[in-house]
Amino acid sequence: MKSPFVKDLAADQVITGFFLVQEKEVRNTNTGKPYLRMELGDRSGSVEARMWEQFEACAKTVNRDDFVKVHARVEIYRNKPQLSLQQFRLAKPEEIDLADFLAHTPFDVEEMYRQLLSDAEGIKNPWLQKLVLKILRNPEIEVRYKRAPAAKVMHHAYLGGLLEHVVGLCGLAKLVALHYPELDVDLLLTAAMLHDVGKLDELCYERSVSYTTEGQLLGHIVMELETVAKAMEEIEGFPAKLKAVVQHILISHHGQYEFGSPKLPMIREALVFHYLDDMDSKVAAVRSAMTIESGEEQWSAYSGALGRKFLRLERYLASEPDNATKKEAKN
Amino acid sequence: MKSPFVKDLAADQVITGFFLVQEKEVRNTNTGKPYLRMELGDRSGSVEARMWEQFEACAKTVNRDDFVKVHARVEIYRNKPQLSLQQFRLAKPEEIDLADFLAHTPFDVEEMYRQLLSDAEGIKNPWLQKLVLKILRNPEIEVRYKRAPAAKVMHHAYLGGLLEHVVGLCGLAKLVALHYPELDVDLLLTAAMLHDVGKLDELCYERSVSYTTEGQLLGHIVMELETVAKAMEEIEGFPAKLKAVVQHILISHHGQYEFGSPKLPMIREALVFHYLDDMDSKVAAVRSAMTIESGEEQWSAYSGALGRKFLRLERYLASEPDNATKKEAKN
Amino acid sequence: MKSPFVKDLAADQVITGFFLVQEKEVRNTNTGKPYLRMELGDRSGSVEARMWEQFEACAKTVNRDDFVKVHARVEIYRNKPQLSLQQFRLAKPEEIDLADFLAHTPFDVEEMYRQLLSDAEGIKNPWLQKLVLKILRNPEIEVRYKRAPAAKVMHHAYLGGLLEHVVGLCGLAKLVALHYPELDVDLLLTAAMLHDVGKLDELCYERSVSYTTEGQLLGHIVMELETVAKAMEEIEGFPAKLKAVVQHILISHHGQYEFGSPKLPMIREALVFHYLDDMDSKVAAVRSAMTIESGEEQWSAYSGALGRKFLRLERYLASEPDNATKKEAKN
Amino acid sequence: MKSPFVKDLAADQVITGFFLVQEKEVRNTNTGKPYLRMELGDRSGSVEARMWEQFEACAKTVNRDDFVKVHARVEIYRNKPQLSLQQFRLAKPEEIDLADFLAHTPFDVEEMYRQLLSDAEGIKNPWLQKLVLKILRNPEIEVRYKRAPAAKVMHHAYLGGLLEHVVGLCGLAKLVALHYPELDVDLLLTAAMLHDVGKLDELCYERSVSYTTEGQLLGHIVMELETVAKAMEEIEGFPAKLKAVVQHILISHHGQYEFGSPKLPMIREALVFHYLDDMDSKVAAVRSAMTIESGEEQWSAYSGALGRKFLRLERYLASEPDNATKKEAKN
Amino acid sequence: MKSPFVKDLAADQVITGFFLVQEKEVRNTNTGKPYLRMELGDRSGSVEARMWEQFEACAKTVNRDDFVKVHARVEIYRNKPQLSLQQFRLAKPEEIDLADFLAHTPFDVEEMYRQLLSDAEGIKNPWLQKLVLKILRNPEIEVRYKRAPAAKVMHHAYLGGLLEHVVGLCGLAKLVALHYPELDVDLLLTAAMLHDVGKLDELCYERSVSYTTEGQLLGHIVMELETVAKAMEEIEGFPAKLKAVVQHILISHHGQYEFGSPKLPMIREALVFHYLDDMDSKVAAVRSAMTIESGEEQWSAYSGALGRKFLRLERYLASEPDNATKKEAKN
Amino acid sequence: MKSPFVKDLAADQVITGFFLVQEKEVRNTNTGKPYLRMELGDRSGSVEARMWEQFEACAKTVNRDDFVKVHARVEIYRNKPQLSLQQFRLAKPEEIDLADFLAHTPFDVEEMYRQLLSDAEGIKNPWLQKLVLKILRNPEIEVRYKRAPAAKVMHHAYLGGLLEHVVGLCGLAKLVALHYPELDVDLLLTAAMLHDVGKLDELCYERSVSYTTEGQLLGHIVMELETVAKAMEEIEGFPAKLKAVVQHILISHHGQYEFGSPKLPMIREALVFHYLDDMDSKVAAVRSAMTIESGEEQWSAYSGALGRKFLRLERYLASEPDNATKKEAKN
Repeated sequence: MKSPFVKDLAADQVITGFFLVQEKEVRNTNTGKPYLRMELGDRSGSVEARMWEQFEACAKTVNRDDFVKVHARVEIYRNKPQLSLQQFRLAKPEEIDLADFLAHTPFDVEEMYRQLLSDAEGIKNPWLQKLVLKILRNPEIEVRYKRAPAAKVMHHAYLGGLLEHVVGLCGLAKLVALHYPELDVDLLLTAAMLHDVGKLDELCYERSVSYTTEGQLLGHIVMELETVAKAMEEIEGFPAKLKAVVQHILISHHGQYEFGSPKLPMIREALVFHYLDDMDSKVAAVRSAMTIESGEEQWSAYSGALGRKFLRLERYLASEPDNATKKEAKN
Repeated sequence: MKSPFVKDLAADQVITGFFLVQEKEVRNTNTGKPYLRMELGDRSGSVEARMWEQFEACAKTVNRDDFVKVHARVEIYRNKPQLSLQQFRLAKPEEIDLADFLAHTPFDVEEMYRQLLSDAEGIKNPWLQKLVLKILRNPEIEVRYKRAPAAKVMHHAYLGGLLEHVVGLCGLAKLVALHYPELDVDLLLTAAMLHDVGKLDELCYERSVSYTTEGQLLGHIVMELETVAKAMEEIEGFPAKLKAVVQHILISHHGQYEFGSPKLPMIREALVFHYLDDMDSKVAAVRSAMTIESGEEQWSAYSGALGRKFLRLERYLASEPDNATKKEAKN
Repeated sequence: MKSPFVKDLAADQVITGFFLVQEKEVRNTNTGKPYLRMELGDRSGSVEARMWEQFEACAKTVNRDDFVKVHARVEIYRNKPQLSLQQFRLAKPEEIDLADFLAHTPFDVEEMYRQLLSDAEGIKNPWLQKLVLKILRNPEIEVRYKRAPAAKVMHHAYLGGLLEHVVGLCGLAKLVALHYPELDVDLLLTAAMLHDVGKLDELCYERSVSYTTEGQLLGHIVMELETVAKAMEEIEGFPAKLKAVVQHILISHHGQYEFGSPKLPMIREALVFHYLDDMDSKVAAVRSAMTIESGEEQWSAYSGALGRKFLRLERYLASEPDNATKKEAKN
Repeated sequence: MKSPFVKDLAADQVITGFFLVQEKEVRNTNTGKPYLRMELGDRSGSVEARMWEQFEACAKTVNRDDFVKVHARVEIYRNKPQLSLQQFRLAKPEEIDLADFLAHTPFDVEEMYRQLLSDAEGIKNPWLQKLVLKILRNPEIEVRYKRAPAAKVMHHAYLGGLLEHVVGLCGLAKLVALHYPELDVDLLLTAAMLHDVGKLDELCYERSVSYTTEGQLLGHIVMELETVAKAMEEIEGFPAKLKAVVQHILISHHGQYEFGSPKLPMIREALVFHYLDDMDSKVAAVRSAMTIESGEEQWSAYSGALGRKFLRLERYLASEPDNATKKEAKN
Repeated sequence: MKSPFVKDLAADQVITGFFLVQEKEVRNTNTGKPYLRMELGDRSGSVEARMWEQFEACAKTVNRDDFVKVHARVEIYRNKPQLSLQQFRLAKPEEIDLADFLAHTPFDVEEMYRQLLSDAEGIKNPWLQKLVLKILRNPEIEVRYKRAPAAKVMHHAYLGGLLEHVVGLCGLAKLVALHYPELDVDLLLTAAMLHDVGKLDELCYERSVSYTTEGQLLGHIVMELETVAKAMEEIEGFPAKLKAVVQHILISHHGQYEFGSPKLPMIREALVFHYLDDMDSKVAAVRSAMTIESGEEQWSAYSGALGRKFLRLERYLASEPDNATKKEAKN
Repeated sequence: MKSPFVKDLAADQVITGFFLVQEKEVRNTNTGKPYLRMELGDRSGSVEARMWEQFEACAKTVNRDDFVKVHARVEIYRNKPQLSLQQFRLAKPEEIDLADFLAHTPFDVEEMYRQLLSDAEGIKNPWLQKLVLKILRNPEIEVRYKRAPAAKVMHHAYLGGLLEHVVGLCGLAKLVALHYPELDVDLLLTAAMLHDVGKLDELCYERSVSYTTEGQLLGHIVMELETVAKAMEEIEGFPAKLKAVVQHILISHHGQYEFGSPKLPMIREALVFHYLDDMDSKVAAVRSAMTIESGEEQWSAYSGALGRKFLRLERYLASEPDNATKKEAKN
């Protein structure tokens, strides 16, 4: 793991370390003297950096989104640390572990992928099994499936988050199919495995999570339609009606038009899958809001994805009666 | 079981049987001669009945929502059967089995209630266990819990439907709590068991399902708040904060203001329970729409609860290619 | 043209003619005697038909959506004509001109298609020209493009309506591109030609206009995405970015999520095309509402597509002052 | 008062009376013989009328919305009365009292208008007083102000209803201005008197209540803007800013865009007046729903204006406990 | 009254006074030297305070929401006053008058409460009278009723605001009941007195106004349901139907689902009370926006509660014609 | 053209120039010394200005929205230029060219107005021609029509923008009327010329664009109704029905209630005009967003009017494959 992380920078330290260039510009002081200003970051936060002398040569070689190796002194300006750069250069690819710059799932990615393949092999419908295995065993897809986040902000917004979400959904799908015997578990598993495949291309998660231009123009639902259609075409004899069923489940999984589903679920499994996907995303969003201290003892941070904050149940149940109650008690 | 049912009436039959009076009025023929017209029904449907002579005495003794024993001849008028009444009287309570007049759950009510009590006993939090058992073992509540439908129209709209829905939710809750270790299964089970207790009073399901006046003025959420609050008060030392938690889960279980929840779920278990309750209701609504033939081979009847019809997956997958496809094949 | 049309049936006529079977069932009279009841139709309307004797053999050979040749007498029942069938048989394909059964565009379909191809040839961007010509010159597509309606109810809901709508949009696109020099007319024309290609498969318009099962599950936007993607793939070297641009214009052409566009227009031409398509559909819907007499002299029929009725401008301007005004005038 | 009213027609009666022609058409019997069919009405209801012989001459002289004098026999057909016409002619204006054909306010119109003028004279701001008196004393306006309904369906939907509504609002305005000393009662009274003046022209209430074509194209807010602007112009020196204030109150009185107010209330008196107007309309709508028996003992008829039914408080409080309660009591 | 208030602090003053600690933290200077930073406030505003030397002992004894007595010098930093603390200690309860720290109603709270009790005694329905007196004469409730604000931000957001709002509503209710004879004034008064009783517990208004955790989980409607239900239970023989009526009025008083009413008003008095409550809140919100100078001469501050600003009528009417008008005048 | 513009100010320059006073206040330094602070602007941006000595006399003579002539030195403070004023005075009207302070249309205003008059003269309906010429040839209106922006923010938000928008709409109207022969081009042209005439008074665009008080109270639709009604009245014999038609088109041109149209388009030309007006505004909003560099190479700035950003088509098509694509290519 890299050292130091932004969150650990301490005054007057002299450091050598690696950071991602998030902003870069040349500015002038009040007296008109130019200097280099950069915003450097890693997965723990970001910090201002300035270089006052002889920065021109270095500055030309790096751009936004590049990784740099810096030699600098930590100063405190307006109560915040700032790097006074003495030297820096473009980092070499082999010096960088991307995981230091983007948060990642706490689970073992390889293990999760094995689990996913095992679930895929458990699909009994031969067409669906062939379809998901064709996609999951495509090495290009596999590499990215193991790295993609499930979203930029809303839920599972870290490397490996998509895989974590999908493996979770497969588990849920199997439980729920036990509960409702009328459901076809093969369709639910297929939905879980393919419903966000378009995110592999909708999002760009090389160095930070953002949307690709194609992702913004088309969205992951439309993008995965094509990926899945191609895979189906390559499977000789894939039944046309089953194809329409799978496509319907994919395009309807957001459950409502305003969330970008051009059709509402009209197949039982599509309806149930929409609930599972939605619930799992929301549970993950709560989990994420819970990790942040909001300043209110009994409440999580405000979750933008959910439009509200959540009660910290244990703390609340363990807390002293609050003012209102105290008062009542006294009277 | 009663005999004959409305759906089995055949032309020229002379029958003796029991029916529910759904409408009753005295009308005049074109020549001004009065006659009695009633709409008689049972759980299989309804039929027009007329009595032309000496109906006055009988007519006085019965009202809408009474059960009657009739002696009549089946005639066919405008291609539909009609009863020509020869005699009728108020039925005696012991002659009537309510189940003949209202549809009921296909599952064994006693068995389901035992399952419910067993789940309740499995709750580990002693306060929550006491609370739900206090309510479920109240004989007045038990009698009605075994009979109540879950709704008038939307889902599980038959005798015992509420119990079927609740037992299903308990099963789901236990599965989902396995999946998400951060969830408190005791709260989920408590939510399942209490979230619709207000329906015991919101609905009137003596002879047909309708809303009581209080049910219309207050709704089941407000009604069950009071039932549950009373039970809590009777449990000495029930913790005030746990009370607020349970109340919050009850009032937020519809998940949205426009569905009558005065608060949105702000506790993890409240959020998850909302999803489970909503999903189970919708799955039941699909199931119910699937039992009705719509005239479109590949589609269920239109579900008012869901605002759409659902694909009959097996029939669709087994069907011949449709016109469009046939055409394509030919070319 | 066929003769007679339903709207021309006169009492006591004995006719021989062709009709589409819209409903078919065997019923019983009050006395229990079975008879055949059918609903027969053509593009001018529909009529009840009954056959009282020896219908069993004939009845077996025909089904809903078949064409029949009937020999019948026109009777009047409850002030409406009814056919008393003497004989009927399945019609032979060569006896039927589909245009007699479905309304069609008043314009010459062949002429419109020539116009369309000529507009396509006028596209200067070589990739876009290849793309649209590949699709428009596909004989399978051409046959259906010349026949498809633009919708089941909303606008251009008749055979050839889609082509009429598209040719109109090409004309509008060229005018508007003249007006706004920043617009790329090639993209607008491509959008016009391809934006409803999915309707060739979404709708079923062999004998009456309805939705195919696939059409209901996927919708024309998703269906045409695949058609267009395949055509692009078959054009070697079709630029990936241009592909994303065309796909974006297709998926965003409904302009709003709730109308089934999974993305809002984010390209200038996509925005303008959305306006043109929407305006042309609405103008056509007004035109169609204007053809129906509503009983209110100064107003069109109520247009479901627009949610209101429209003023008949000429009649209104030519009318006498109405009551309110008359009154004012007198005082 | 006219006699008989539709609601009093009895079988086999021979009557002579006056009715409004609501529909008129010539039809054919099954045997092709033509006859005249009309729908005749008065304020108590409507009835079918037929004339079988020698109706051609009479029929030519009357049209929809004409009043006729008829001589007829009352027959009963399908359990409903029907008029068999022997003779009829166009009624003379002096034979008709419009009040027999349209419901009217139970209050004395002349008395209410005197009250209105007296309130107007009580306005202290000289410009506002001049303005409202100029309008209320305009004889053309006065005649129609005494007759206009406040709406076609929603509230005060009878002759004189508008005046009743306005006089009520003036009373409310004076009470509320006492309560909130910061309010300018003159502005509230002006608003009450002018806010629906456009309805004099928006509605047509000669013989039945409907919308004029101009009313549909412009709406009463726009129509009264012009009436009021003209009156202001004729008052020399009317302050421009006071004019804008009055206009703002008029255009914002519906309180929301979707109810046709192009601006939301941004003046204190505009806000309060909106509440008073809305509340008075809704109270009147409840009152009207309460006059109709719905078949449910404890509930009013469903009010379309309010989207719900209302509890009959007295009946409810006086009622026996309902089934649900009875049950509880027994146990 | 305390002295000085924050708004009166002047440069170079040396002061001794009492403040509420709104924030407290220890920070480091750029050179790493720790200092204490607090935000101190009273009802007139808030001010930054810093203590540079020997603050550790004092700092330990105070927390957020404590009152402190400070000895300090007023300095100006970046054009704003700042306190340089020399000494401070926790204030003693008897040194503090809460009214100095929270804004309060301009009216006499005791006088208003007497008025409220007198209105309660004027209720003729014996059950309703007993009910409201039981609640209003409960000493615990009385103490808090005299202090509670009506809201945190929206309207009457100051100590005693709730009482002011309720007394105002009682006055309005009596006026409006005079106007509409069909209204039961006893129900309206009961509604006014009880509809916000839940706010006594929903809000926390010891030192500043905020929501209690229970208030956030349940809301005042649900909270007051329980308070009122308990009071009813303690009144022997309180009629069950009257209870449902009162409960309905309470739960429906927000008038719309999205404002947290689980039922819409279905009783006449519930409907009218909703209008009165809504109008009084909005009038108060306008009043409050009017007290703030927005920088725009003719307009109030923007009211978040109303989503707009309001015209200052007097200033507008008295103003010079604005530019646009001036211009016109010149031409 | 004035010199220098704010955007051209360079450090240490000594300048003499003209600016608009956007803010003015007297502040105190930390040591209590008063100084003058102003915000000065022109159409290229705004700059802080301070005067430290002897500013009292000057300061009294100028106010917000005045133009001033300043003599100052450009200093750099916190990396931004700031004016250190040495002297300033009120500018004389003849020294100021308003166009230097507000952005203006790139087109020749006189030429556009000639085009507009020529289009007006081309209207064949004599009443409509008289109407628009009466308005357009009114010298007071003409002066302002040549200067008014079309909006404060949304589209064509610069001097002459309204005229540019209207001339564009006339051009579009003529093209579209060619395309749809059922449209009356005279009505479309009249709509284009009059639909925003109210903006001449709704907006205030003397020195910066803002809303007049009347504009906020009434809005341009209501304001132009009066202008147009007056013009019609002055044309003897202007047909009442044509007046209603024109008024309807004006009030419905926003197309939806929530955008302030009290009626939806119910005339064919009103519907089409709404589309043209909406499309032209949106195309202009895109154009304006395209002129701003957003920092994202391939995207325009975010357009508040449209709620999204737009693709820069040329740059996108010419760009290197992005990361996602690069990756794919490599594998």
